[in-house]
Amino acid sequence: MGRAPLFAQLVANTDNGFYRQDIISVRQFDREKLAYVFGLAEEMRHMVQQVGSADLLHGRVLANLFYEPSTRTSSSFMAAMQRLGGCVIPINEVRYSSVTKGESLVDTVRTLECYADVIVLRHPEAGSAQIAADCATKPIINAGDGTGEHPTQALLDLFTIQRELGRIEGLTVAMVGDLKYGRTVHSLTRLLSHFGGRLQFVSPEVLRMPAELLREAREQGMEATEHQDVAEVIGEADVLYVTRVQRERFEDQALYDKVKDCYVITPELLERAKPRMTVMHPLPRVGEISYDVDKDPRAAYFRQMENGMYIRMALLAAVLGRA
Amino acid sequence: MGRAPLFAQLVANTDNGFYRQDIISVRQFDREKLAYVFGLAEEMRHMVQQVGSADLLHGRVLANLFYEPSTRTSSSFMAAMQRLGGCVIPINEVRYSSVTKGESLVDTVRTLECYADVIVLRHPEAGSAQIAADCATKPIINAGDGTGEHPTQALLDLFTIQRELGRIEGLTVAMVGDLKYGRTVHSLTRLLSHFGGRLQFVSPEVLRMPAELLREAREQGMEATEHQDVAEVIGEADVLYVTRVQRERFEDQALYDKVKDCYVITPELLERAKPRMTVMHPLPRVGEISYDVDKDPRAAYFRQMENGMYIRMALLAAVLGRA
Amino acid sequence: MGRAPLFAQLVANTDNGFYRQDIISVRQFDREKLAYVFGLAEEMRHMVQQVGSADLLHGRVLANLFYEPSTRTSSSFMAAMQRLGGCVIPINEVRYSSVTKGESLVDTVRTLECYADVIVLRHPEAGSAQIAADCATKPIINAGDGTGEHPTQALLDLFTIQRELGRIEGLTVAMVGDLKYGRTVHSLTRLLSHFGGRLQFVSPEVLRMPAELLREAREQGMEATEHQDVAEVIGEADVLYVTRVQRERFEDQALYDKVKDCYVITPELLERAKPRMTVMHPLPRVGEISYDVDKDPRAAYFRQMENGMYIRMALLAAVLGRA
Repeated sequence: MGRAPLFAQLVANTDNGFYRQDIISVRQFDREKLAYVFGLAEEMRHMVQQVGSADLLHGRVLANLFYEPSTRTSSSFMAAMQRLGGCVIPINEVRYSSVTKGESLVDTVRTLECYADVIVLRHPEAGSAQIAADCATKPIINAGDGTGEHPTQALLDLFTIQRELGRIEGLTVAMVGDLKYGRTVHSLTRLLSHFGGRLQFVSPEVLRMPAELLREAREQGMEATEHQDVAEVIGEADVLYVTRVQRERFEDQALYDKVKDCYVITPELLERAKPRMTVMHPLPRVGEISYDVDKDPRAAYFRQMENGMYIRMALLAAVLGRA
Repeated sequence: MGRAPLFAQLVANTDNGFYRQDIISVRQFDREKLAYVFGLAEEMRHMVQQVGSADLLHGRVLANLFYEPSTRTSSSFMAAMQRLGGCVIPINEVRYSSVTKGESLVDTVRTLECYADVIVLRHPEAGSAQIAADCATKPIINAGDGTGEHPTQALLDLFTIQRELGRIEGLTVAMVGDLKYGRTVHSLTRLLSHFGGRLQFVSPEVLRMPAELLREAREQGMEATEHQDVAEVIGEADVLYVTRVQRERFEDQALYDKVKDCYVITPELLERAKPRMTVMHPLPRVGEISYDVDKDPRAAYFRQMENGMYIRMALLAAVLGRA
Repeated sequence: MGRAPLFAQLVANTDNGFYRQDIISVRQFDREKLAYVFGLAEEMRHMVQQVGSADLLHGRVLANLFYEPSTRTSSSFMAAMQRLGGCVIPINEVRYSSVTKGESLVDTVRTLECYADVIVLRHPEAGSAQIAADCATKPIINAGDGTGEHPTQALLDLFTIQRELGRIEGLTVAMVGDLKYGRTVHSLTRLLSHFGGRLQFVSPEVLRMPAELLREAREQGMEATEHQDVAEVIGEADVLYVTRVQRERFEDQALYDKVKDCYVITPELLERAKPRMTVMHPLPRVGEISYDVDKDPRAAYFRQMENGMYIRMALLAAVLGRA
């Protein structure tokens, strides 16, 4: 994974371990690869803050193929490509496009790779990103495939932890909310398991972290405990990773009303937290973090969004052999 | 509001009175600021006509956030940004995006400013642009907030008057159509009141200019009269600013049918107008200006559209400190 | 139609026969013009494969106006413009845009030409591209007007035949499927009639090639025969151009079920075809070419898609006077 100095490079770096590769799953990332991407993302951050943009991907074309809407993720990839001087073909209204005429995902992807150098795919069905990758010769970046994976989200989450706290090793990370269906907490759990430390899973009984993921984390040497109230973990957590508890997940609505306040983050709750810790959320939020918390310097969720752009810039540059 | 020579500038001009400022309301614009923007728009016009585009905003990113569709306004901002070498993240399908998941305007704006350098916002609710501006650190440009304001429309209207007639001071301006709900005529009335002259408000009884705006204009020294038929004013107007009279505004449909022809502009009507005057319309039109009028050299509405691009180029360059 | 060397040119080539012209119909193209466009498309292909993009249209703006969705065509034009360094204003959601407020095509086109240098138009009504061209001063490229024409599709089809087989003259071209309503086969028939050769029209009785087109082709010296089963022509065809047979076209559903398999291309069928021939399809397909065929080197439909981008690059450069 040797890398030539960024922004001084004339030929493709075909030896970075990412060149022409698909980004489908967090399982592709070991500590070495994570360090590579995070180092590159850090360079992107400096570049954007100092000069705003670069021409590293000048003349390259990204097809941003979203089968379901996600303003944040699609905007983040668009900005990432454009800040590196590249172009974007946004395909957002798939509902009204050739897909409705019965065109298969495979034909759509094979068509788009005729025009573009890299394809970002968001699709509601788990496994669709791998299907696309199998048929395409250009790199596919999975931007969320249903209950499957959303690897760039997990990478930006981990990168944010590193930036906010200066390290990843040995932290106490509390994940709060819907741990059963939450794709982001599953992927983050897998990535954190490379670094040791302690995981605190805080959820209603009906939304507990799947037993398999819990066992997997423990097998990799993580300490992992389960809780039903965020108040139990607030004093020890270095990271509070909050996700939404949706009313629709509960058969018993009275139960939802009874437990929902156990998963809401307020300034009062944060008074009991460490002075140096970080509150994260994949957004959008719907009440689970009070707006009063935004002013707290530990509230990192908008910096987390910004980090997403740098991670995506890093990945785009890497798969296109420009870093 | 000193300004360095355009297209020769290397560092941000932080002293132009617009740098990092929001553009929310026409109330922000006095004659000095109007002159600055119009001078800049005129330079943009020359540049586009001579070379098509410039790289003044190369590497800058605009988030074009439209909560309701407006092809003309969104296209105009996109073209403005692109002709200055910048990039655009178009967010048009908000109906199907994270907003439908309950994400607030504030969170959306705070997310987008992580990716973009400036945000253009169109939103159906009055006051939303100010809410966005209050939470954002990047400049917000109001592209219409419901019954609130649409300041770039008013600026391009006034700029068009200046370009078509060579001056703004002391003109007789007739505004025709829906003066009660028409956001554009309200804002234009406010801007014209800086320059003296005469305002002729021509509308059905049920769609008269609000009394408060009328009083305000008079207090600023404008002569202002009200009329019910465009024929009464056609001979004296230097500017005929036409807007649509919508059938839905009338409880009594018979009344609508009776009066509607009093607000339709035809070649016959224009025979009675001054040889040097200008016919304007914010578009889209639905019958209130006959297509036969398009050939008349006094019909300025498509030049008015074009001027909108130059005004938006000027504002984008100014708030980003590049002019 | 003299042309200066590409990518070395500083002023508009106003003498290429396309400068500021509209592209509305295949009837505009004689053999000389076809040769010019195909030569240019071939240069575009080399450029993209070697360096990815050029700055030939740097600073130019394309308005991509799609009144009905077509992911492939709109993406192809976007990529074509961007790979030449130009910018795009995508207008895809016309359903929710000013058009729904009653704005006419003419006003929309006249507005967009205030912002853009060239307009690509897709519209469901035949004749709409000509209406747009008549009112616009900037070039209009027809990207499909209902049952009318889709000239860039026909050009890419013919260009693909030339690239796949090395020539166009004197070939045996079988067209399969819906020949009654199929806009692409009509236009391709017209273009092929410049080059001599044999046309085999294979369709169900209810979807036969219109008699007028058949007569027209014969008058231009083409040999033309009609068939009801692709098996009849498979052994002789140099080109197998497949289109979809839609169930909805049949009043008698039993008839559809009875005949539909006569128009499905399978590996078994292709065993009986020439070793050097080409299978084409305008895509999307819905079962009329089996996925097993994709691996066959004679399956050209994805190369055909790619060629579409080169043809569109050539046309954009030509009408803007940059080639």
